[in-house]
Amino acid sequence: MNYSNSYDFEEIREETMERILGLLNDKKYFKARDEILKLNAPDIADVLDEIEQEEGEKAVILFRLLPKDISVDVFSELSSDDQIKIVNIITDKELEYIIKEMDFDDKIDILEELPANVVDKILEKTPKNERKMINTFLNYPDTSAGSLMTPDYISLQKEWTVARAMQHVKDVGMDAETIYTCYVKDAGRKLIGIVSLSTLVVSDDNEMIKDLMRTEYVYESVYDDQEVVAADFVKYGFLALPIVDNEHRLVGIVTVDDILDVIEEETTEDFERMNGVLDFDTVERGYLDIPVIKHVINRLPWLVILMVSYVVTGSVIAKYEVLISDQSSLVVYMPMLMGTAGNTGSQAATLVIRGIATGEISTKDVVRVLSKEFRVGFIIGAVLSMLNFFRIWVLEGEPFTIAVTVCASMFAIVMFAKVLGAMIPLLAKLCKIDPALIANPAISSISDTVTCMTYFTMAAIFLGV
Amino acid sequence: MNYSNSYDFEEIREETMERILGLLNDKKYFKARDEILKLNAPDIADVLDEIEQEEGEKAVILFRLLPKDISVDVFSELSSDDQIKIVNIITDKELEYIIKEMDFDDKIDILEELPANVVDKILEKTPKNERKMINTFLNYPDTSAGSLMTPDYISLQKEWTVARAMQHVKDVGMDAETIYTCYVKDAGRKLIGIVSLSTLVVSDDNEMIKDLMRTEYVYESVYDDQEVVAADFVKYGFLALPIVDNEHRLVGIVTVDDILDVIEEETTEDFERMNGVLDFDTVERGYLDIPVIKHVINRLPWLVILMVSYVVTGSVIAKYEVLISDQSSLVVYMPMLMGTAGNTGSQAATLVIRGIATGEISTKDVVRVLSKEFRVGFIIGAVLSMLNFFRIWVLEGEPFTIAVTVCASMFAIVMFAKVLGAMIPLLAKLCKIDPALIANPAISSISDTVTCMTYFTMAAIFLGV
Repeated sequence: MNYSNSYDFEEIREETMERILGLLNDKKYFKARDEILKLNAPDIADVLDEIEQEEGEKAVILFRLLPKDISVDVFSELSSDDQIKIVNIITDKELEYIIKEMDFDDKIDILEELPANVVDKILEKTPKNERKMINTFLNYPDTSAGSLMTPDYISLQKEWTVARAMQHVKDVGMDAETIYTCYVKDAGRKLIGIVSLSTLVVSDDNEMIKDLMRTEYVYESVYDDQEVVAADFVKYGFLALPIVDNEHRLVGIVTVDDILDVIEEETTEDFERMNGVLDFDTVERGYLDIPVIKHVINRLPWLVILMVSYVVTGSVIAKYEVLISDQSSLVVYMPMLMGTAGNTGSQAATLVIRGIATGEISTKDVVRVLSKEFRVGFIIGAVLSMLNFFRIWVLEGEPFTIAVTVCASMFAIVMFAKVLGAMIPLLAKLCKIDPALIANPAISSISDTVTCMTYFTMAAIFLGV
Repeated sequence: MNYSNSYDFEEIREETMERILGLLNDKKYFKARDEILKLNAPDIADVLDEIEQEEGEKAVILFRLLPKDISVDVFSELSSDDQIKIVNIITDKELEYIIKEMDFDDKIDILEELPANVVDKILEKTPKNERKMINTFLNYPDTSAGSLMTPDYISLQKEWTVARAMQHVKDVGMDAETIYTCYVKDAGRKLIGIVSLSTLVVSDDNEMIKDLMRTEYVYESVYDDQEVVAADFVKYGFLALPIVDNEHRLVGIVTVDDILDVIEEETTEDFERMNGVLDFDTVERGYLDIPVIKHVINRLPWLVILMVSYVVTGSVIAKYEVLISDQSSLVVYMPMLMGTAGNTGSQAATLVIRGIATGEISTKDVVRVLSKEFRVGFIIGAVLSMLNFFRIWVLEGEPFTIAVTVCASMFAIVMFAKVLGAMIPLLAKLCKIDPALIANPAISSISDTVTCMTYFTMAAIFLGV
């Protein structure tokens, strides 16, 4: 057999895509299907997404030719736009099959994304008891533990032996989301312990579940935020986490594969928020799928808010118009001072925001953080001031007073911006606002205004105006 | 039993910390140990880190009182500073035990972090054959798949029955990193298939491994970057991934718990790079642990590079000094124009960088991305221009020509910055530079200069200077 060094999906996909597009052009649908079946379900979904963009309906035809069991897995992985297209075209019988066979948590994810009329169509096809459970799950807030979990876990009884438990796992395992962690409940459906499959496998057949189960375990509530759940997985390295209701009844479990998606979503959200992009749309849709007008809606608010803050900065400048018209060379250094203040503040904010996100920094570390930024700001401010003094006075031969004005301002604003940049995320955290959302606009508006005031005040002092 | 709604570690830790600090002050070490043992290993490590900060050596005493098996797990979770302190204080026999019992991949992680003299001390205590393997693993590049993997996986033979395989898992399972995915190798140690424990559990005892194993599977090479490995986990939802050498021999596996740490590290790196913080230090150390001087070293380069770019901007402004001294009110709108250009460019860059990171956008999407940003820029530019026209001409009653100058500049630079912001990450990707590293400095330096040139050119046109 010939192996490449690593499984390079990009390459395989490119080749497969070309072959498939060729076959589709020749209307050789069955051959195209055989070609696409060489890939894993997530890759098949990727290829169908691409075919949809280039060839439209041919993707749906190809999807319908997939073997039934595979079509379910592929459907779960498609973008919601493609899912809607497929739901609108396939027969009710096909839809019924897909919905029936899908993992419960995937079903919930998809139903949350689809438009209401399609959801109704799907719920009609669902058995009554399951429909009730779906509705319960759909009611959990969008980013709660409840919206992530699946009820398809394995329950064991504490009086069972290992042999009995293993037989149970064998019997019901195929339908469970994971068999690697099993849950022990009392008569009132309260969670009393967890036991991993690896414990079962390495234990003697006659041992009792109640002697093997761990009664100290980590769990979260259905209404906890998905970020809290994700943090547990990162900290403890779990494969699954039990989710309980107010009475400590086990209502579902969250598995690590779903957490990987949550972390990706949350990271995207933080990245975007830190750089002034909001997310009125669902986080799950990609950049290319979001229409232009939604991109505009996601980006305008922050720009408009900042623009208002520039009015303040502008009015500070307006006060010094006489000074500026007299000493117009002062303007040359304004972009550098304002830019450096913003950049240096955003460096500090980034580190503190990230420290808060990973749990390293909490609001009680405020003194340690400020003392660190104060010292960092002192050194950076001093270095940048000296570099500028050398440049302005020695290299460019500008007047000594101009050089001193610029350098004294630089030192002061760097110190200020470092402390400001570290403070704002901590303040936001204290006020329970997402630090990623507030930090950069707050820093840039405050630091711009303070920079202008500092600079022109220094100019007034040193130039004796 | 009384349950809170969710397992709130923060609260439990605070309470435990207080009790432990009290007990330590009374020198009741054994009681303090009993208290700390109520927590999980990662939480014990957190508490010890905190005690170390407040009480110094008492943390080491407490560590040495932990039961041996737990001390191994806790040691793996400690910060490398604390690990070094402990290694320097404990007896050789204690160190020997800890190193012997630690998971292989944790051992490698720790040895990579510790100073050379401590590593030598540890390697002396290691049996010869393992020492050889440790040295091989230590030689894989820091962020490669090889540096993440563990050789402690379960190998099965293709001629075995399920019953034989399950017995094997039972026998060796305790020492394996995971028993949930098992690997089938041929006589030449080449990987020929994988089979999950869930398949084994639900299959008949007499079935043959060769009939159950999957021969189409995803794998990576030892030298592949950890980001590639992490992307596989996110895409396919694996619990473990096989890592092979050039001859397709299985050399180790990477498990999902380690991938969660990789994703956190990589996210931190991207966050920092996008906001101008480099990482000459290892990514694993936290903000609070990094000394002031290293913080300065990580932040200065970007600020100095940008400062050089401000020299260019400054020289553009210098050319228009006469115009500025004549029309000093032009300066009032400069911060707004430069700030908006930078912000709007960084919005576009953020979305494209994140799209590249999650695999949604590739360099071949350049036309789609540009066309999207062109349209988004057009609308945003138009809206912001109109808002400003209203503000400057209607509200502030400035001359019409000033309003037109500002608004025409605003429209032009927003369009420019959007396209620039989207282009630079794609260009960086094409040149195999990390887009997160280059995007913001490149955008802010180019957009500042272009903004000044545009603004003053427009001013010259509309004010007829």
